[in-house]
Amino acid sequence: MNPRGDSIPESAFKVLEILERSPEPISGEIISNELKITRSAVWKNIKELREMGYEIQSSQKEGYRLVSSSSRLYPYEVQKKLGTAVIGKKMRYLADTPSTNIVGKQLCSDGNLKDLHGTVIIAEEQTGGVGRMGRAWISPAGGIWITIILKPHVPVDHIFMITMAGSVAVARAIRKEFELGALIKWPNDIFIGKKKIGGLLLEMSAEADNVHYCLLGVGIDVNNPVKDFAADLQRDITSISAEVGHDVDRASFLARILKEFENRFQLVESGEYEAITQEWKSLSATLENRVLIRTLKNSFEGEAIDIDEFGALIVKKDNGKLERVIAGDCTHQ
Amino acid sequence: MNPRGDSIPESAFKVLEILERSPEPISGEIISNELKITRSAVWKNIKELREMGYEIQSSQKEGYRLVSSSSRLYPYEVQKKLGTAVIGKKMRYLADTPSTNIVGKQLCSDGNLKDLHGTVIIAEEQTGGVGRMGRAWISPAGGIWITIILKPHVPVDHIFMITMAGSVAVARAIRKEFELGALIKWPNDIFIGKKKIGGLLLEMSAEADNVHYCLLGVGIDVNNPVKDFAADLQRDITSISAEVGHDVDRASFLARILKEFENRFQLVESGEYEAITQEWKSLSATLENRVLIRTLKNSFEGEAIDIDEFGALIVKKDNGKLERVIAGDCTHQ
Repeated sequence: MNPRGDSIPESAFKVLEILERSPEPISGEIISNELKITRSAVWKNIKELREMGYEIQSSQKEGYRLVSSSSRLYPYEVQKKLGTAVIGKKMRYLADTPSTNIVGKQLCSDGNLKDLHGTVIIAEEQTGGVGRMGRAWISPAGGIWITIILKPHVPVDHIFMITMAGSVAVARAIRKEFELGALIKWPNDIFIGKKKIGGLLLEMSAEADNVHYCLLGVGIDVNNPVKDFAADLQRDITSISAEVGHDVDRASFLARILKEFENRFQLVESGEYEAITQEWKSLSATLENRVLIRTLKNSFEGEAIDIDEFGALIVKKDNGKLERVIAGDCTHQ
Repeated sequence: MNPRGDSIPESAFKVLEILERSPEPISGEIISNELKITRSAVWKNIKELREMGYEIQSSQKEGYRLVSSSSRLYPYEVQKKLGTAVIGKKMRYLADTPSTNIVGKQLCSDGNLKDLHGTVIIAEEQTGGVGRMGRAWISPAGGIWITIILKPHVPVDHIFMITMAGSVAVARAIRKEFELGALIKWPNDIFIGKKKIGGLLLEMSAEADNVHYCLLGVGIDVNNPVKDFAADLQRDITSISAEVGHDVDRASFLARILKEFENRFQLVESGEYEAITQEWKSLSATLENRVLIRTLKNSFEGEAIDIDEFGALIVKKDNGKLERVIAGDCTHQ
């Protein structure tokens, strides 16, 4: 994988680099001389960059000028802003794919897991996105749909800490980038007010006592119009652009998410679960709420009072009994 | 998958069925008339069956007689003896493959998990067999090398109960078929006396709170000669044939293992973990032994005194402190 995750062809990328270095317009002739390519090759590359979403002004007299970068989530654009040591240093970019988690599984079954650790798979659009329990996850263009490949040193029974680290990272990134009051709904959704804006899905391949790899899928409604959702969903869903009133820079936002995640993933690997649960609690929309819990076996109501070091929700039932919920759906009452 | 798991071609199988129904020799002419095929086609099928390991006598005067079935682990041969409701009703047969667990992963990622539940993948030989923690598992022809595909209704944190159910099934099957005192060494090996005869490996694909599928790999040294192992391994390894002094019927043995496993798998799915741990304890080579435990973080000695409902070994250290070991290597002192 090259630094651009194969999303920008080599020749177009060289032209882009020159444009990025030139605050003033630059003539096709200079570009052609510098890259030792023909004027018509320069023009073809400019055309290609425009098709990729780069806004490039051109005038007969002055030449070419880069007005704005592409709004697509090209690895190159994200990595320009990335401050991580491992997470996202390698990326795969896909215009569309059924599901980035499926791509992750294929990479992991074919490749070397140590090399793949930290790789981020980015899709502009998912045609078969998946949420918890195999439910559909609608993933139109304009959102952030990614999978982070991890080969974690985390025991199987603490694996949910990785989801929690991811939830905290997404909520924090939303707060820092957009000053929106994002909260986490147990087990793995991100909310703004009463509306869902994103979610996480952790899948793993493991032995009973040894995790081979994890795939942390993250989906966030960012610039995709809420009105594109089915009418009955629109009431319950929001997006970053709907909240702030304009489209936002997804590349900066994603770079921020990955940085926030890397910091917390390191805590999980060091076994500092308390640090994760503390931060999770401070961002929780679920705790101190009356909740309806549905598990495979039964359903009950009560007050969500705590979360333990395995990520289980502790619910105080009306009869005073405490119930530990490790798997289930949770509805706020 | 047809009942023979595609291991016996249709035309040869029809001839085999006729031979199996005929205690007396049967002429090529009768077979040819019954199947409406030529005499030379009958002969070709007989030849093919012989190549597959079926011993068929032929005489000009009397015709063909099946003397003995093939000693290969063809699904048809196992299923003739199978008494299960689900486990092993579907089978895949491979003369050789790198690893039956890898085949299982491919089937599960391509196929419908509900349909695949209970499927048993059988290889005569594995060229890249894998044990715990990615260690090599030597799997020459003559042993039993299988993977059972499961879509279990078992919480992630109790998944090791499936390994335990498998260990109990293998130990019980060895005891019943061959009257050998098989015992289980924590976490997942089968021993006869001080020598290893088999092992299990459970791999899963899961969310933090939802198991997609499990692959239970089982490997047992049966008719494969112990002298084929490296010299330094021979002291520590035994096989069924080495213990009983002759080759045994692998198909009956495998059918028995699958039956014993199905019974116990049902207990696991019903949450009757106590029944599994009780039986496991009664077959344990590890409990009441002095053990050396090596985990990723440290190593220590003590007495193995119990196993809990998650499959963790409880070790009493020399200072009297109890240690719960969920992942690690265990050496008997």
